[in-house]
Amino acid sequence: LGCLYTASSSFLDSVSPSDREGNGSTQSSHRLLAYSDALISIIATVMILPVAHTKVEDNESVQLLLTTKIAVYLMTFLIVTVAWAAHIRLFQVIVRIDDCLALLNLACMMLITFLPYTFSLMATFPNNILGILLFCGCVMVIGIIQSVIVLYAFSRPFLLNEPIQISENQTVYKHHLLKVIMRVPIMCFFASVFSFIFFQLSYVLLAIVIFLPYISQGLKWCRSKAMGPVEESPDSVMFYTYLPNEPLSKERVEAFSDGVYAIVATLLILDICEDNVPDPSVVEKQYGGSLVAALQDFGPEYLAYFGSFATVGLLWFVHHSLFLHVTKATRFMGLLNTFSLAFVGGLPLAYQLTHEFQPNSQNELEAIQISCVIIFFAGIFQLCIWVVALYNERETLHPYVRYGGREHAFMLAKLALYPCVALGTFFLTCILSKFSAPIFHLMEITVPFAFLVLRLLVRVGLALIRLIFYPATANRNVIVEEEVSQASVPFNALIT
Amino acid sequence: LGCLYTASSSFLDSVSPSDREGNGSTQSSHRLLAYSDALISIIATVMILPVAHTKVEDNESVQLLLTTKIAVYLMTFLIVTVAWAAHIRLFQVIVRIDDCLALLNLACMMLITFLPYTFSLMATFPNNILGILLFCGCVMVIGIIQSVIVLYAFSRPFLLNEPIQISENQTVYKHHLLKVIMRVPIMCFFASVFSFIFFQLSYVLLAIVIFLPYISQGLKWCRSKAMGPVEESPDSVMFYTYLPNEPLSKERVEAFSDGVYAIVATLLILDICEDNVPDPSVVEKQYGGSLVAALQDFGPEYLAYFGSFATVGLLWFVHHSLFLHVTKATRFMGLLNTFSLAFVGGLPLAYQLTHEFQPNSQNELEAIQISCVIIFFAGIFQLCIWVVALYNERETLHPYVRYGGREHAFMLAKLALYPCVALGTFFLTCILSKFSAPIFHLMEITVPFAFLVLRLLVRVGLALIRLIFYPATANRNVIVEEEVSQASVPFNALIT
Repeated sequence: LGCLYTASSSFLDSVSPSDREGNGSTQSSHRLLAYSDALISIIATVMILPVAHTKVEDNESVQLLLTTKIAVYLMTFLIVTVAWAAHIRLFQVIVRIDDCLALLNLACMMLITFLPYTFSLMATFPNNILGILLFCGCVMVIGIIQSVIVLYAFSRPFLLNEPIQISENQTVYKHHLLKVIMRVPIMCFFASVFSFIFFQLSYVLLAIVIFLPYISQGLKWCRSKAMGPVEESPDSVMFYTYLPNEPLSKERVEAFSDGVYAIVATLLILDICEDNVPDPSVVEKQYGGSLVAALQDFGPEYLAYFGSFATVGLLWFVHHSLFLHVTKATRFMGLLNTFSLAFVGGLPLAYQLTHEFQPNSQNELEAIQISCVIIFFAGIFQLCIWVVALYNERETLHPYVRYGGREHAFMLAKLALYPCVALGTFFLTCILSKFSAPIFHLMEITVPFAFLVLRLLVRVGLALIRLIFYPATANRNVIVEEEVSQASVPFNALIT
Repeated sequence: LGCLYTASSSFLDSVSPSDREGNGSTQSSHRLLAYSDALISIIATVMILPVAHTKVEDNESVQLLLTTKIAVYLMTFLIVTVAWAAHIRLFQVIVRIDDCLALLNLACMMLITFLPYTFSLMATFPNNILGILLFCGCVMVIGIIQSVIVLYAFSRPFLLNEPIQISENQTVYKHHLLKVIMRVPIMCFFASVFSFIFFQLSYVLLAIVIFLPYISQGLKWCRSKAMGPVEESPDSVMFYTYLPNEPLSKERVEAFSDGVYAIVATLLILDICEDNVPDPSVVEKQYGGSLVAALQDFGPEYLAYFGSFATVGLLWFVHHSLFLHVTKATRFMGLLNTFSLAFVGGLPLAYQLTHEFQPNSQNELEAIQISCVIIFFAGIFQLCIWVVALYNERETLHPYVRYGGREHAFMLAKLALYPCVALGTFFLTCILSKFSAPIFHLMEITVPFAFLVLRLLVRVGLALIRLIFYPATANRNVIVEEEVSQASVPFNALIT
């Protein structure tokens, strides 16, 4: 039964083999999942907009409002990614679709896209139970639709993945799946009932629902520590667990990340296109008809746009390089990726803030430092993914980037560049606080070029290290490395 | 040389074969292109936002403003899709990337995302040359970056597609490519120079640039009609032409469409999340603390959201079913797809308008009729794609949906459902204008269920037709069809 692991990890493979019982209306689920990923990534990042459009004044209540909105953004991001993870594991079991499943999935998506709004009602009116009821209602309907999807798919076994399709005890799988899926709606049902009696308890229940995977995982760990490893029935152990090394479809992690990066990179241009086209009459009156003068007022906003696009684009580039060498994504790597993306989502706003205040003011300095902190965390979580992957490198990484692989040092340099630069800029702005803006802009301009010449820099750095530590063998090693990189090594394993 | 055609159409195939000269840093371009498609689809739909946020009053100048903004939206959509088509054909030649190309492509994307803004400046200040200069500047820089990409790729031939890689005269290809790419920036250069002398001429030049593919195609057609078919050099004929049946990467058409459908489906929830969370103090004052009462005012907006999500989702579903059976996409099909998407983009706004006016007012009736017209055109252009594909069905369609294929009638029903329903609703609202809103809502609710039972409906319909026209053979045919659909026919050709 251990083959379930391998099967669900090689997601694409399981689509292509001949379906023994397939009928004419069966379809590959690839595009449906890509579309779902696009929808979910938009919804995950949408709550950043109310944060973006809050006008910051030197007013205590606005600061509080901003904090509330940021908390809503982060919580929404978390909830939506939990829903997304559940969607992934469901469609790792159901690998083919037909028209009926596609329509049911669209209905499910419609309700998921409504979740952020109910959540934002909860945050604005914490003492009103309407938000809780709406949220619970949505989650319950989503659970029912997903159960229908499972029942429908098990009634047509050619839609399921290979190991379950050939397995003898499909009913066991079905019941286990339904049990896992229905756990969340049932808890939401209790939360909505309790909200009438004692609504604080509902919030506790909802928090449990959201963190269920991690709580269940923690409990299992505690139990295994306290009573020694327990022998469970093999089905429930290997299938639909919450283990951190449970495989997660790498393709979908990439698609979701691409969606978030794309939305975030263009967040500022959306605002610019809408707000920064001056009214002809205003230009006539205030600027004497000079459009150039009118647009000069928006200069800082253009700068913020190009800065944030470049930073988000380069963080995407690092992410792309990393996942090109990842052969299997796990749940834990997915979680770290989510954290990284949550910080990326805040980046455009931080950049926007850097240009909104008086030059050399305390506010400007703080905004620049916040930007550095966000870049640092977005980068460091990407680095964490790699570190986690290295712990189990035989399973999760391509040979080129493992310890001693020819791309190992280069990948480390790529992943470490942004955290290091952000940290350096942060401390520089602390020391030279008067020049914080020029330092920040210099950083923005240098980093893209640093990426362009990074391979060269890494090679020079390695040569220097060898020269210092092993002066005798240095020359020979450099020549050997040159030869290796010139040789035509096939790269197919990576591409396919 | 004809093999170029087949090679660039089977885009994915050309990624996987062993690269004979590949070196370690070469990567599959798949994810870079998916990310570019996501960025471009966001930018293509962004200019709908200023249209969405224009407040409609009974005021002549607002109507004019709205018309201008809609024109800007449609023109932006067209320009961005022209840039996107150029991007596709460039990366049909360059099928593998390395870090340097990825970074150059990101720079290119940054400038493309800035185009809508320059265009919107042009529309707001038609007499000011700043908009023209900015637009031309962007296009020229994009052209230069793309030329650098071409030069870089040809200096590392393992990045190119197979036919060019093994070809003897790579230099001919390179020069042809550069010539085609540099045509646009050079015309923009002249446009920016002319703008100082006689700026109306610049607009003419820019219009020529945008419609260049179609103009060049028209001229070629005229020449061939006037002087008989001309024998050109084989390279320029088969490669980088503007022929309507030139293949277009089907995968990228799907990715771009998915992006547009996803953004459009969530457009209204973005607004709802930002604007429709009432302020606690307002609820306290105006509604006596009753959140339910406060939210009831937003009821029509929720209805508009669910209605537009369902319609866009179902149009995506039709698009998905269609492209599942399309084996090769052509330039002309891409153009029809663009038209369909441009209408889809306007759908959420039309839906929003239907709920903004007084019940039974002339405005409400007009808004509902506009929604029907938009749905009709979005659907009819999808149907056109299929009709065009049928003209050359051996090359472009899967056997199941060709004339006489077992899915042919079902596919036709799927594609015709929305145009027919929209047309029916339109005429019903003309006749029974008093009940226009109930008719429209009834349509919204029935259509998803119609899709669920469509297969059944089509079978019943076909059986009825047989019964009426060939009463003698009807019974036998139904049995045969049943048998065929029960038989386990492998469906692999479609999935892979």
